Amino acid sequence: MISRQEIRAAAVRIAPYVRRTPVIEVEAGRFGTPGPIVLKLECLQHAGSFKPRGAFNRILSSAVPPSGLIAASGGNHGLAVAYAARELGHRAEIFVPTIAAPVKVERLRALGAVVNVIGAVYAEALAACVARQRETGALEVHAYDQPEVIAGQGTTGREFEQQAPDLDTVLVAVGGGGLIGGIAAWYGGSVKIVGVEPETSRALHAALAAGEPVDVDVSGIAADSLGARRVGGHMFPIARRFVDQVSLVSDAEIRAAQRALWRESCVLAEPGGAAALAAVHSGRYRPTPGERVGVIVCGANCDPASVSTAGA
Amino acid sequence: MISRQEIRAAAVRIAPYVRRTPVIEVEAGRFGTPGPIVLKLECLQHAGSFKPRGAFNRILSSAVPPSGLIAASGGNHGLAVAYAARELGHRAEIFVPTIAAPVKVERLRALGAVVNVIGAVYAEALAACVARQRETGALEVHAYDQPEVIAGQGTTGREFEQQAPDLDTVLVAVGGGGLIGGIAAWYGGSVKIVGVEPETSRALHAALAAGEPVDVDVSGIAADSLGARRVGGHMFPIARRFVDQVSLVSDAEIRAAQRALWRESCVLAEPGGAAALAAVHSGRYRPTPGERVGVIVCGANCDPASVSTAGA
Repeated sequence: MISRQEIRAAAVRIAPYVRRTPVIEVEAGRFGTPGPIVLKLECLQHAGSFKPRGAFNRILSSAVPPSGLIAASGGNHGLAVAYAARELGHRAEIFVPTIAAPVKVERLRALGAVVNVIGAVYAEALAACVARQRETGALEVHAYDQPEVIAGQGTTGREFEQQAPDLDTVLVAVGGGGLIGGIAAWYGGSVKIVGVEPETSRALHAALAAGEPVDVDVSGIAADSLGARRVGGHMFPIARRFVDQVSLVSDAEIRAAQRALWRESCVLAEPGGAAALAAVHSGRYRPTPGERVGVIVCGANCDPASVSTAGA
Repeated sequence: MISRQEIRAAAVRIAPYVRRTPVIEVEAGRFGTPGPIVLKLECLQHAGSFKPRGAFNRILSSAVPPSGLIAASGGNHGLAVAYAARELGHRAEIFVPTIAAPVKVERLRALGAVVNVIGAVYAEALAACVARQRETGALEVHAYDQPEVIAGQGTTGREFEQQAPDLDTVLVAVGGGGLIGGIAAWYGGSVKIVGVEPETSRALHAALAAGEPVDVDVSGIAADSLGARRVGGHMFPIARRFVDQVSLVSDAEIRAAQRALWRESCVLAEPGGAAALAAVHSGRYRPTPGERVGVIVCGANCDPASVSTAGA
């Protein structure tokens, strides 16, 4: 289990390298909720998602060999590792599945990383990454299943609590579970934590039903960021203890939330970044009238044309 | 001349209705500057631009007749008046030129306003608006040339000074000059104020050269938000005293700044909203190495597809 002390230490360690992302409060009704909701705009984090928090914490907690850093990622985590490598002066080798958005692969290369596009889904890219790591001895930065990564992501929760101290509920999108694991560990039961997964990529929902992490099939418009085949072993006990429920949302509901977020708040998020909002916007999660709800908007990396309002 | 007291009073008056928009600091080099720059994300204001500040201040300072509010606007100001009317329970009638982005006209109607699309440019829509106002007696909310409007826009400067107190220079895009007039009045010479105009819509540049507001032709990709034919009489003496210089930027430089803003910071701005950044990004305005620069990102209302990274 990750402690608040570990998250606090991570926050100090990564502070020079990550952005304290802003929050905005959105009035009742804008996204269909009976009361106002607070959005944490983690989509404005460096490299376009929350992922640098965990990556920097892992890297700064470790001895980095001359072969540098190695990671497998559907995209955002790879961007974060490549970004951290550039900022800290390390080499980086990134394995991404063919499902990754082309814009993310281009950006990885622009950040100076060596990119290997291998495997149909994240798990296959990860297997190739693990094999390569044995050859080079590079420091592996896992996309979600390392304690330092989870503690780093947990700094999102610490900041959010400082910025919006009176929340009752926090909604967090779930892929492999690093972000919700860190946030749930930070709050430690003091707020209700709601995980949100695409119907077509429900690793946490399945794990909680099975009583242990199990493999699921992944597909859908958010699969490039949320498409982990199973949740991490490090986050699972945290989720079992501190995640109150998991809401499932459809691809259409995610797209509708992306468009509403742009229309109502001029914030542009990728599908995975809008998934948590989709739960309230669609009514899959219905806050009570007095419930103070916070939503993490956790990533931006997409082609803005996909959120075009023309003809929508 | 607008006083700091008027701007402070405006801030109190409009506080329940406008958002205190966030600022983010961007590292040296990201936009080609030798040092970090601070962006004020006024594009996250309600209705997608800074305009509600002036509109609310004008409306809340006035007696509103049963015929409600009337305004002419290339788009953003109209959206702001329609938004304010909805929030405050007034009727609104908005005149927009045919140059206005279709997405803005749709949103005006969605906000409940009566929309009249009249005239090729802003000045023609304004003439029709003035004629109609004489018939109905509705409260005119000018897009830039009323003291209450300028004082309202000046609250952007007051907030920015609180959020980033150690700036040397603030860059502000200029259409009719309400925003820069209010901001320059707030700072009152304590920072260097740089106006930024499209080469094809240079009302302030021309006014300062002529010694008085004069008509200019307007065109280009930012004309729907910055395309005022002449700057306001109320802002001109403020500009003459407190605007240090005006940088001109091309349409290509504005588009490049829009794309860089999205790529580097995941902020999506309309052309007029990215114009001030374009001055530093293009090198038209070159800060010195130690100069602390703030940039107002003043509007978001565009089709995200226009900032698509595909093929860019």
